[in-house]
Amino acid sequence: MNPRRFEELTREESLRRLGSVSVGRIVFTHQALPAVRPVNHLVDNGAIVLRTHPGAALLSAVDSVVAYEADAISEDDHIGWSVVITGVARRLRGASEIERYERLLRPWVPDEMEYVIRIHPELVTGFSLIEDNEALPHGAAP
Amino acid sequence: MNPRRFEELTREESLRRLGSVSVGRIVFTHQALPAVRPVNHLVDNGAIVLRTHPGAALLSAVDSVVAYEADAISEDDHIGWSVVITGVARRLRGASEIERYERLLRPWVPDEMEYVIRIHPELVTGFSLIEDNEALPHGAAP
Repeated sequence: MNPRRFEELTREESLRRLGSVSVGRIVFTHQALPAVRPVNHLVDNGAIVLRTHPGAALLSAVDSVVAYEADAISEDDHIGWSVVITGVARRLRGASEIERYERLLRPWVPDEMEYVIRIHPELVTGFSLIEDNEALPHGAAP
Repeated sequence: MNPRRFEELTREESLRRLGSVSVGRIVFTHQALPAVRPVNHLVDNGAIVLRTHPGAALLSAVDSVVAYEADAISEDDHIGWSVVITGVARRLRGASEIERYERLLRPWVPDEMEYVIRIHPELVTGFSLIEDNEALPHGAAP
């Protein structure tokens, strides 16, 4: 495997990549312990939107700071990227907004996903992991 | 898209799937906020092992409860699985153990990944998301 190096992504590029995939993981605190759930998301106007159902552990995170992560890292050569955003998770209450996202964002299972959560990213970090063509193996001639 | 349903995985099957992939995400609390980092891992004797470097935020999680998540969920049809384990992250100190894992677990970048972290899973949960062939669309004739 060739050497790799991390390259930082801008906020704009990070949000673009987050919007290019539909699956990510929401990270929150539940009963004082770190918790994580994979969900599908939408990036809309720079915010992350997801749906959940009554009774979901995730609802304990409403109005608290959460992290949201998405990545695409190859199992084979570990080339890829990852983006993490951090912000407060808010539950949407407006009927027209909820309706709009119910149309745009389809849940995986036919559950009653009647809650819509939106996270406005306060912190955005991202990196890509790329082949480092400039790196030479230790001791190799230039 | 056909209907989907969740199927719970046993502890054994969850750990088997976790061991079948090399990339996951460690979830921890950093400066009182939820944090998440993608890493590569090894499942060894039922425990999750990963490497990190001095100065990593992740080190603040040593001796605390962390979660570790891996999944394989298709971007196209959302068929797949996810596993989350929860346990205390311990830093290994024994030279022979560290050496063994340094051999077995290759970091992505040629950093000094001199710290080895092991998580013994206390809680293990997993689900697979499968096509629900028994579900009929609402209103469809049987």
